[in-house]
Amino acid sequence: MAVGEAPLPQFFPIAGVRIGTASAGIKKPGRQDITIFEIAEGATVAGVFTKNAFCAAPVQICQKYLRHASAIRYLLINTGNANAGTGKAGLNNAQATIAALAEKTQVSVEKVLPFSTGVIGEHLPVEKVIQALDAGLANLSADHWSAAAKAIMTTDTRPKGVSKKIHIAGKAVHISGISKGAGMIKPNMATMLAYVACDAAIAENQLKAMLQHACRLSFNRITVDGDTSTNDSAILIATGQGELNSQRLNTDQLQQLQKAIDEVFVELAQLIIRDAEGATKFVHVRVIGGLSEKDCEKTTFTIAESPLVKTALYASDANWGRILAALGRSGVADLDVSRVKLHINDVLIAENGGRAASYNEQQGIAAVSGSDIRIDIDLQLGQAQATVWTCDLSNEYVTINAEYRT
Amino acid sequence: MAVGEAPLPQFFPIAGVRIGTASAGIKKPGRQDITIFEIAEGATVAGVFTKNAFCAAPVQICQKYLRHASAIRYLLINTGNANAGTGKAGLNNAQATIAALAEKTQVSVEKVLPFSTGVIGEHLPVEKVIQALDAGLANLSADHWSAAAKAIMTTDTRPKGVSKKIHIAGKAVHISGISKGAGMIKPNMATMLAYVACDAAIAENQLKAMLQHACRLSFNRITVDGDTSTNDSAILIATGQGELNSQRLNTDQLQQLQKAIDEVFVELAQLIIRDAEGATKFVHVRVIGGLSEKDCEKTTFTIAESPLVKTALYASDANWGRILAALGRSGVADLDVSRVKLHINDVLIAENGGRAASYNEQQGIAAVSGSDIRIDIDLQLGQAQATVWTCDLSNEYVTINAEYRT
Repeated sequence: MAVGEAPLPQFFPIAGVRIGTASAGIKKPGRQDITIFEIAEGATVAGVFTKNAFCAAPVQICQKYLRHASAIRYLLINTGNANAGTGKAGLNNAQATIAALAEKTQVSVEKVLPFSTGVIGEHLPVEKVIQALDAGLANLSADHWSAAAKAIMTTDTRPKGVSKKIHIAGKAVHISGISKGAGMIKPNMATMLAYVACDAAIAENQLKAMLQHACRLSFNRITVDGDTSTNDSAILIATGQGELNSQRLNTDQLQQLQKAIDEVFVELAQLIIRDAEGATKFVHVRVIGGLSEKDCEKTTFTIAESPLVKTALYASDANWGRILAALGRSGVADLDVSRVKLHINDVLIAENGGRAASYNEQQGIAAVSGSDIRIDIDLQLGQAQATVWTCDLSNEYVTINAEYRT
Repeated sequence: MAVGEAPLPQFFPIAGVRIGTASAGIKKPGRQDITIFEIAEGATVAGVFTKNAFCAAPVQICQKYLRHASAIRYLLINTGNANAGTGKAGLNNAQATIAALAEKTQVSVEKVLPFSTGVIGEHLPVEKVIQALDAGLANLSADHWSAAAKAIMTTDTRPKGVSKKIHIAGKAVHISGISKGAGMIKPNMATMLAYVACDAAIAENQLKAMLQHACRLSFNRITVDGDTSTNDSAILIATGQGELNSQRLNTDQLQQLQKAIDEVFVELAQLIIRDAEGATKFVHVRVIGGLSEKDCEKTTFTIAESPLVKTALYASDANWGRILAALGRSGVADLDVSRVKLHINDVLIAENGGRAASYNEQQGIAAVSGSDIRIDIDLQLGQAQATVWTCDLSNEYVTINAEYRT
């Protein structure tokens, strides 16, 4: 199940990035489950990763290499096995796969980052991964973004990608990105996996700040089930092989670049929610009029993760009592229930601590019957606001997760 | 659906408490939906209530009357309508029903406490409630605990009650209690509704402290879906018409009395989980070896509320990766993943950051196949611990909550 249609875009190739996919037979024989990103010399790379204390072996290695080294040249991604909850053996296994790729490509091992997604707690079949590397390298091409979007999927029902071309200060910038994820989604940080590249030149520190900004507004604002994955990773690459160099931009132009990157990340994050496990509705939860952004965020997530709100949305039931009950337990400082205004898709539903006088059930049913639902809450306390994107909770979600071994 | 059998006990009547039920036709014609507790003069009464900011009108009245007054003489409970999210009209409606009962019984209105449970956001049908009062009063009897356990149900599939007789310092104490609740359960404080009475004499302040102690260990340690109700209320009555007077007890004997009350509350709380919406498993989640009880509680609740852990349990899948992932995101201070030990029903499953060497899948399947599952985590950091009780997440939960208007 998935909400609406979301075909892959025509990807702009990014000069300085080539992608190869291959089949290692990790979980399903014959399936493309290995993806290699080759990044040209001179590019900068930034990453953000899960804050889960039980983070996977590849995440630990990425964090180490991105902290001490730079000049990353290869990304090696496998699906079908998360290499998480695998202890010391997991670290050794991840290290063995990137060492093999480093040897084949004649770079030092610190220039290769590993990524895994799939079943937790099983040991990575190192030999199978290594045996697939030659095929992946032989397959490298600037035009394989679509193939990569498919090769990184797990329970996703469809591949996810965004590609944009913009002009800043008269110079063209191309940005292409892919993501995967459908369940165990409450990035912190980021979604299971996302890879975005642009052809601008952006210095490493600035790139890192730009990535953090984009993630805060995108992958850190989505939730399917409140479960933060052990493998979340988001990578932003700037190859510097296009026309734009961020060092020659003024503040306004830099903001335009940031905005373009933010938009790609927000679209990739929303694509994950639209394909969330069992989802039949895409739901925006926005809280405005708060005293602090943190308060607003807490409230949006409480509502977005309430099983009762989510099951009501699944049933196209404008059950505003459950929304107010979730708001009421979310711990908003100085909440005054008599001031709260609740709209769903522009229909005023509750105010003054109860149902709005103008509201009737037919309006509510009309508001929640579509597949895109906006829940808007005005606390009328201050100026802060936050938005998160989520989905409904369906029988299908339970069935998928009762049958799938993470 | 419900886990195992749990027939009502033979209730000990509590001298000084009589109960009457009646049908007001609030939601379903003919159904017993009104319950009146008559409490003899001289009894003490304590209550704890939901911390949801959108608390229902009757909860607001209860809190006010229990703060300023005492000598409570009547409880008036209705099911079928929560009188929550009803603004000022809701307060007036609740007040009108207790005023009518006060007039009929010739007590002042502050001696009557109102309680409601059922649909949120609908106005209470005051006339129907008032018209049923005479029948309820005519029906008062010390032997109507079973009838009351049934009359307070909403989505519960069965009534819930506990009754005990113990001796302390050679004196008999009788304790009887009932509770209701099956969804929107994360009391804070307490479950939807619970009423417990004993025939000991206990001073008001002491009774309040005893109730808080009992709730902390019982209703505040259960979760079905993390959703805190707007109407949670737990009431403890001490009639003083039995043999025991708490003022004549030494510290040891007082602890025995507290323990007996705690046990009744824990049993009532567990009965709610065993009857949780869609539940097929009763799950204990215990975390030991923590640095603080608060940390342990946070972790137990994170695991107990993880949709991925709950759906795996529903499938009888010993998916320990999801348990570790939930632990990893729960924010335990100074967590050392290499020290964590995970047992399910006494089978050692994970240690040293991964699967235990001695573990095999057959053991795991055997451990989670029954209907009572104990998840035990040792953090090996300190001496603190906490236990919560929860259930699995089934298709049935989604179906119930997609169809039922709270």
